Amino acid sequence: MKYEFGIVGLGVMGHNLALNIERNGFPVVGFDLDQKKAREFALGPAAGKQILVVESPDLLIQALAKPRRILLMVPAGSPVDAVIARLKPLLEPQDILIDGGNSYFLDTERRGAELERDGIHFVGTGISGGAQGALWGPALMPGGQPEAWQALAPVFRAIAARAEDGQPCVAYIGPRGAGHYVKMVHNGIEYADMQLIAEIYDFLHRGLGISAGELAELFAEWNQAELRSYLIEITADILRKTDQETGLPLVDVILDEAAQKGTGKWTSQNALDLGAPIPTINAAVESRILSSLKSQRSAASRVLRGPQNLPPGNRADLILAARQALYASKIAAYAQGFGMLAAASQEYQYDLNLESIAGIWRAGCIIRASLLDQVMRAYHHQPDLTNLLLDDDFRSAVEQRQQGWRTAVQTAVGLGIPALALASSLAYFDAYRAERLPANLTQAQRDYFGAHTYRRLDREGVFHTDWQAAADQ
Amino acid sequence: MKYEFGIVGLGVMGHNLALNIERNGFPVVGFDLDQKKAREFALGPAAGKQILVVESPDLLIQALAKPRRILLMVPAGSPVDAVIARLKPLLEPQDILIDGGNSYFLDTERRGAELERDGIHFVGTGISGGAQGALWGPALMPGGQPEAWQALAPVFRAIAARAEDGQPCVAYIGPRGAGHYVKMVHNGIEYADMQLIAEIYDFLHRGLGISAGELAELFAEWNQAELRSYLIEITADILRKTDQETGLPLVDVILDEAAQKGTGKWTSQNALDLGAPIPTINAAVESRILSSLKSQRSAASRVLRGPQNLPPGNRADLILAARQALYASKIAAYAQGFGMLAAASQEYQYDLNLESIAGIWRAGCIIRASLLDQVMRAYHHQPDLTNLLLDDDFRSAVEQRQQGWRTAVQTAVGLGIPALALASSLAYFDAYRAERLPANLTQAQRDYFGAHTYRRLDREGVFHTDWQAAADQ
Repeated sequence: MKYEFGIVGLGVMGHNLALNIERNGFPVVGFDLDQKKAREFALGPAAGKQILVVESPDLLIQALAKPRRILLMVPAGSPVDAVIARLKPLLEPQDILIDGGNSYFLDTERRGAELERDGIHFVGTGISGGAQGALWGPALMPGGQPEAWQALAPVFRAIAARAEDGQPCVAYIGPRGAGHYVKMVHNGIEYADMQLIAEIYDFLHRGLGISAGELAELFAEWNQAELRSYLIEITADILRKTDQETGLPLVDVILDEAAQKGTGKWTSQNALDLGAPIPTINAAVESRILSSLKSQRSAASRVLRGPQNLPPGNRADLILAARQALYASKIAAYAQGFGMLAAASQEYQYDLNLESIAGIWRAGCIIRASLLDQVMRAYHHQPDLTNLLLDDDFRSAVEQRQQGWRTAVQTAVGLGIPALALASSLAYFDAYRAERLPANLTQAQRDYFGAHTYRRLDREGVFHTDWQAAADQ
Repeated sequence: MKYEFGIVGLGVMGHNLALNIERNGFPVVGFDLDQKKAREFALGPAAGKQILVVESPDLLIQALAKPRRILLMVPAGSPVDAVIARLKPLLEPQDILIDGGNSYFLDTERRGAELERDGIHFVGTGISGGAQGALWGPALMPGGQPEAWQALAPVFRAIAARAEDGQPCVAYIGPRGAGHYVKMVHNGIEYADMQLIAEIYDFLHRGLGISAGELAELFAEWNQAELRSYLIEITADILRKTDQETGLPLVDVILDEAAQKGTGKWTSQNALDLGAPIPTINAAVESRILSSLKSQRSAASRVLRGPQNLPPGNRADLILAARQALYASKIAAYAQGFGMLAAASQEYQYDLNLESIAGIWRAGCIIRASLLDQVMRAYHHQPDLTNLLLDDDFRSAVEQRQQGWRTAVQTAVGLGIPALALASSLAYFDAYRAERLPANLTQAQRDYFGAHTYRRLDREGVFHTDWQAAADQ
């Protein structure tokens, strides 16, 4: 018997994907360098299933039907190159290697080009949804040769999460590194979503003195309407959880140093190369960095005094303002993320379908949210929409919440509660809708000290002024 | 006769540096690939001076005393590699190549290592001050082999700007790419300074309706006290200048799209690699990107409505708040920039002397400001100061301005005037002085969906919770 799907790397993600693929009718052969991990999987969850765990890459290759389909679930970076180098001599033209890790998209481009010389297909696929998603239905973002996608589609469609309308959360993203690119931006948006929620939590908890238990109820209520999303849902769960040992809300005893694994950072760095503005995502990455300076912050908190203001206005109004600020900021963050995808689609010729990408993200992945239905609709009506903020529904959603958004940011500023992501979202909105920005002064300064020249509003051409002479006039 | 200093690249910067070096007693030999440019320089500004313009690199090499000192003033990137490749076969051990462009510091590290194999010294030097600085005294930031610095010091000390205490604005920065690194961060701080001024200008002009002429007086007045700096000085000059053709303030007819050449972007990208928080600098880079979307903004301005509020409070109070916000934000931006230098000093083993760097920046360069005297003093008292905000003088300067800072940001938010850099500076301050940040929630979320684990405030160890089970309790 030949197996239909190979998996290299049987950690929690690879392991759960193997179970998911087998459950959907595709016999799986798996391999892991760590023989103990492989044996535990073989004798445990894989036992009695159409899953063969082998002891060498050679056996894996032999066990697979052709063209072979092999998913690599190993850590991003050099491990991916090492596995490819090990497998490549054993592969034949038309075989398909799939990288399911969070690889940097330019690494995927390089690897794909190298493998293509030998006729081997390479698919870099984003996989989102964590361990549970891998087992029961992730969102999948595959990029690579269209013919490779054809060969993978039956498996990927079978194992993917399904949106409420029954559509599987997978579609061909685009050529080369497009799949990993889109997954990178997904993670950037995830950083933004998480930071916005964190700031609203901080505003309500530390600023207004609302307890974790009360906040759990509030987030659960918010999860019933426009903010409905996986991250809001789990936030309610988290805030509800009591620490067995101290009797305190568990969230209150968790160390406030956020870790990160790199995809948020890459999103910020790449957006700078593209010239795509994503200030909310940047704010989220910066906020994780700031959080990690815990000992510095502790020392500084004893020296740098903040305002002693009490929260102004009444509690119910401020809670409503917070909710409005969260939703409006979320829209701004998605506008930035999708704007970045549009810019990348041009720059890298990925020919991305933004409606389809929003559709994939509706289920299975961490940023699944009812907002994405609206994003889909917006791009369905206007595939070349310049910015989500200009869609009628989003425009009016922001318009209705604008006053509360401003009030929340102003109140946080008054209380000394940092709200970098909320404030950056609002500044993005205000800058994007500004016919005039003060960059005219910046250009004048650059011309003054560096003769960099400027353009004018009232006619074409490039101009330089002798500003020092001017000052004497 | 042998010449003491060679210059390759006779554009405005190279040309002016040649005149500066010769004026200070060092005969110069120059070369430019563009024969027309070379001839114009030879027959014009260089005529009658101890400046020889030659027609080939070979002649330049022959004309120089040994060990040769050759400054490259060519555009950053491949032109630098091309010139090095052309000169290298002609050079001898102990000769010194100097790159005076805005090269990326990792390129400088690579070039230095390659040249070192042949015993050739390589100095990457930051040069700031624009064309006038090059001619009359720039700030210089040389990095490379200490022995190469010894050979250059007499020339560099002679041509550099001088601070008010008479010290030349040059010192050995550190090994390898340290000079270009420090110049990169200088430019990042310059972006921040310029954007903060632009936002205050926008707040006062568009928000409060103060005319360019009135603003010129205001900035000139501010330039007499704590904000005294080159950028404030030239802002006053700019705002005072009338357009001959329209009779309008010239600044009002300049197109509001800011350009950039890359060093600000590199600063943001590198800070992410270092994990150094620089939100004000990031905000400045993002704001230039946003400004460049002029046609999108124009279209959006007709659709996305902002608040119709009138400025609250009285004009004099808001002007004072703006001034306080500008100075406090500037301190925050410098705290970020110097914090980044400290992080880089460790990461790249540059052994940077922050007091000395602040000293160099006091004159000649674009960010020269009286604030830098205070930065020098702060690092003189405490060379290992963790953050400038913790210096007593800066701490109290911010404390005195804190209320105005908050009022200015709140007012801008209320008026719908984007102030990304001012708001980011304040959020940085509030985050840095926060004993607790909401990253505990972020860590709980990461543990919930990805089993990433968390740490606790009350004891050591790494923990994981089954949050879904928890939600049912």
